[in-house]
Amino acid sequence: MIAEKMKPLMANNSAIRTMFEEGDKMRARFGAENVYDFSLGNPDAPVPHEVTEAAIDLLQTEDPVALHGYMSNAGFEDVREAIAESLNRRFGTSFDYMNILMTVGAASGLNVALKTILNPGEEVIIFAPYFLEYNWYVDNYDGRVVQAPTDKETFYPDLEAFEKLIGSRTRVVLLNSPNNPTGVIYKEETIKEIAAILERKQKELGRTIFIISDEPYRELAYGGAEVPYITKYYDNTIVAYSYSKSLSLPGERIGYLVIPPDLEESSLVFDTAANANRIIGCVNAPALQQKIIGRCVDTRVDLEYYDRNRTALYEGLKACGFDCVKPEGAFYMFLKSPVEDEAEFCNTAKKYNILMVGGSAFACPGYVRLAYCVSYETIVNSMEGFKKLAQEYGLS
Amino acid sequence: MIAEKMKPLMANNSAIRTMFEEGDKMRARFGAENVYDFSLGNPDAPVPHEVTEAAIDLLQTEDPVALHGYMSNAGFEDVREAIAESLNRRFGTSFDYMNILMTVGAASGLNVALKTILNPGEEVIIFAPYFLEYNWYVDNYDGRVVQAPTDKETFYPDLEAFEKLIGSRTRVVLLNSPNNPTGVIYKEETIKEIAAILERKQKELGRTIFIISDEPYRELAYGGAEVPYITKYYDNTIVAYSYSKSLSLPGERIGYLVIPPDLEESSLVFDTAANANRIIGCVNAPALQQKIIGRCVDTRVDLEYYDRNRTALYEGLKACGFDCVKPEGAFYMFLKSPVEDEAEFCNTAKKYNILMVGGSAFACPGYVRLAYCVSYETIVNSMEGFKKLAQEYGLS
Repeated sequence: MIAEKMKPLMANNSAIRTMFEEGDKMRARFGAENVYDFSLGNPDAPVPHEVTEAAIDLLQTEDPVALHGYMSNAGFEDVREAIAESLNRRFGTSFDYMNILMTVGAASGLNVALKTILNPGEEVIIFAPYFLEYNWYVDNYDGRVVQAPTDKETFYPDLEAFEKLIGSRTRVVLLNSPNNPTGVIYKEETIKEIAAILERKQKELGRTIFIISDEPYRELAYGGAEVPYITKYYDNTIVAYSYSKSLSLPGERIGYLVIPPDLEESSLVFDTAANANRIIGCVNAPALQQKIIGRCVDTRVDLEYYDRNRTALYEGLKACGFDCVKPEGAFYMFLKSPVEDEAEFCNTAKKYNILMVGGSAFACPGYVRLAYCVSYETIVNSMEGFKKLAQEYGLS
Repeated sequence: MIAEKMKPLMANNSAIRTMFEEGDKMRARFGAENVYDFSLGNPDAPVPHEVTEAAIDLLQTEDPVALHGYMSNAGFEDVREAIAESLNRRFGTSFDYMNILMTVGAASGLNVALKTILNPGEEVIIFAPYFLEYNWYVDNYDGRVVQAPTDKETFYPDLEAFEKLIGSRTRVVLLNSPNNPTGVIYKEETIKEIAAILERKQKELGRTIFIISDEPYRELAYGGAEVPYITKYYDNTIVAYSYSKSLSLPGERIGYLVIPPDLEESSLVFDTAANANRIIGCVNAPALQQKIIGRCVDTRVDLEYYDRNRTALYEGLKACGFDCVKPEGAFYMFLKSPVEDEAEFCNTAKKYNILMVGGSAFACPGYVRLAYCVSYETIVNSMEGFKKLAQEYGLS
């Protein structure tokens, strides 16, 4: 009954469903407050009050037909201009509204970008570990994912190996910093090196290679960590942004693409992307949410909400004897499994009502991902279980 | 720079853009009130006050993190249940929330449905004239559109010809009633005949053939015209619905798919569609809009707003000597061009500041489409121009 292409996804999906169902059963049996569920990347920091106020004011004062009506497939021009100006202020870029395309979240933005530039059989290089959903996005356009390695201590790109993977089919390098699942932020140095390699390879191969930078976690950078703005280092960069995490609006599906002026044939690519936005079925990003963003362009969730969790979880786990890189951004921690088979480790953790996702779900077995977008109490109360878990593996 | 698949679309797109630019130039030169633009299917009936009230109340009373948060890829269960109950009340169906999948409008719903069931090379039969955007949706999944003829007087399906087009590659019959561009509504008799043909062909060919029923204009049916609910006549039907027209919310991108319980392997198809919704990048329909719909499930725009336009335009054009089927639904009228080359007719109309879209844009040359979702004054004031246009072609 279902399309052939959907069959592998559905097989994979039943594993994820089983995990969710196990969590639900645990909550029913032990009570939600006694289950320490670190498996979901579901932003839970309070929505800034400015968002609600802007929404109510728009609904009370604007003409409803215009407020909820069609606009250009690229989005409302005033909103796009407000975003461009905010980026220019913050990152010293030179964008205007013709560089900003409103999208149904970053997931849709990535699909719009791939639909715009990727041909069947062309390759998208992605540094592992990574959010495996990218595989399906690339598959939507019959492209091929090529996994590039990272250093197993730092999760920084292995640039020598990376360069060797670039060839006559390479079309896109998909970056994600701050990273899901590791929380690593790529430093300016690394971005410069990646850019230099790509410039060299573009010339050598006589073809355009794009960076697509997936940046839903851009604003979640702790301790003053800088997240370099990649268009400043490499012209053929498309940025996919989302307000899901920065404003805790994941269900509203609102984000944008940046197609910078220095990208080759920028205005053709922009127009094509606006049409791609239409024909993949989105038509445009949700109108009211666009207008809300126009008024909240510099508003953010309270970073301290996640940072406190980050510190508590990292220090607690280190004290137990676990091994992991201290995340600088996003709301994930990538823990080394004390045994090679991380599925066994995840299963043992369930004895202590701790739920984590195995690294195999991020193309990186031997690790587990913990999402710390949970209540602070969850982290504090989970520590006794983590201690016992560490003891069980002889870590302390 | 852009993907090969996008190139024909971009070529086509520049023609549409030229038309819009001409309209803008006209408005700048003659004043917007003196340009009679019937080219855009942009709903302009007032948004029902219940929608605005529901939105404000939700924003004032609900927990913002839950209100704007992730939910199942299929949408909020309470909203889906409310829609199912409304459909059951109105059409005597037996749906529940597991048959309703919230989507980013009907355009996205169609893409989700096609992603779920269509394989490369499989055929989608569509009765011409039709909304040519369907071609791109089918092309997204490497399917092939097969145009089926309609009677040139009534625009009713030619069922004999239709039956002959069904073969071993047929996967979908895409219906659209009330129809864009003709305004025709398929009567129960026709639906029954289509269903009987498909039942027969399914058996004969030993394969499943789906109806996908695109119903954004379902509520726009005038003079008490009935729009049969197709799942009642044919089990393997997927309905794509949108609130763009029924609530004048086209920019908000909110609609749903119905995957009825009697569809073969209904729950597998539903789960696959929910996953398709996620991987094409939508993830889920916009959260706040879903919740608004949950509270406005039986709310509609004032039908009289469009009906008055329909009558005024139809009677005015008939009095001028033009030939067209009286539309029963949607907000379009499909006028026979007095000359074979309808592009010439459209061009001549511009002398009188009248903008229309040629039937070639709907796979039906020799006709023009007029969208009467305009102010009543536009219709009244356009009549002098139409009279002169008719005289120019010797119609009166």
